[in-house]
Amino acid sequence: MAVCVAKERKILVAVDEGQESMYALSWCLNNILVSHNSKDTLILLYAKPPRPVYTGIDGTGYMFSPDIMATMDRYTNELAESVMEKAKRLCKEVKVETRVECGDPRDVICQVAEKLGVDMVVLGSHGYGLIKRAFLGSVSNHCAQKANCPVLIVKRPKSIAHDK
Amino acid sequence: MAVCVAKERKILVAVDEGQESMYALSWCLNNILVSHNSKDTLILLYAKPPRPVYTGIDGTGYMFSPDIMATMDRYTNELAESVMEKAKRLCKEVKVETRVECGDPRDVICQVAEKLGVDMVVLGSHGYGLIKRAFLGSVSNHCAQKANCPVLIVKRPKSIAHDK
Repeated sequence: MAVCVAKERKILVAVDEGQESMYALSWCLNNILVSHNSKDTLILLYAKPPRPVYTGIDGTGYMFSPDIMATMDRYTNELAESVMEKAKRLCKEVKVETRVECGDPRDVICQVAEKLGVDMVVLGSHGYGLIKRAFLGSVSNHCAQKANCPVLIVKRPKSIAHDK
Repeated sequence: MAVCVAKERKILVAVDEGQESMYALSWCLNNILVSHNSKDTLILLYAKPPRPVYTGIDGTGYMFSPDIMATMDRYTNELAESVMEKAKRLCKEVKVETRVECGDPRDVICQVAEKLGVDMVVLGSHGYGLIKRAFLGSVSNHCAQKANCPVLIVKRPKSIAHDK
């Protein structure tokens, strides 16, 4: 067991603009990381929604003008930046790395977890990203099934959830 | 954060006869509990399958003879005992409580977690109990959605999973 404590772990926390992911991050910092005397590296991951593209599902498709695309890109980039800043402010006395990836958060989280060989994935039970409504709840289910490492799903207590 | 470290947490670990739940327990001991200098209480929970009863689904039903029922009860009790003994052997220098409840593991885990007000539920990604085949994978999904506390789902690494 001592070996495990001495080991420098990589812990991936998926963050988005929702309060629940920030609560998950805080819970992880208070319950998982602090106890290891900051030996761990915390990897903050934000998944940007993929750009709209032609869909092959039914042959129909759509395109946005370059202006609108540029505006959307700028907005999502600013959003990612503000989320990361907010998350980093919570991380005191912890080694932190940040990553912003583009794609379906379900895939992005599992892919980054595998690529970096993290020891644990931490995420809220809902979300993630601008397309969270479309994937409500399914991100945590998907990651719990597909990620090749332990997955910690943190739900906001009802007592504070309603101010979300 | 110091407050959280000082806090004595209750951590519920669902165990069954499968190797995956024992791996989940070991992972929890090595990564979550040991770091808190045994301030936490580990609650080992085993869900016994419910007794066969008349089913109201389609009006059909069945009963087993008292002899068979007694044999089944004895078998499940012995199984629960052996699982708990195996689990307790893994728990060194940790305050441990054991609970054996009867019912669908999905409900039992969430009910006990709420009743005891645990800080976290830990379980393998598959199982639990004799009826695990019928609920493969669904226990962890169900608990992640329904439990009113953080849920840690520990998957056995592929490298050792095939000897299960």
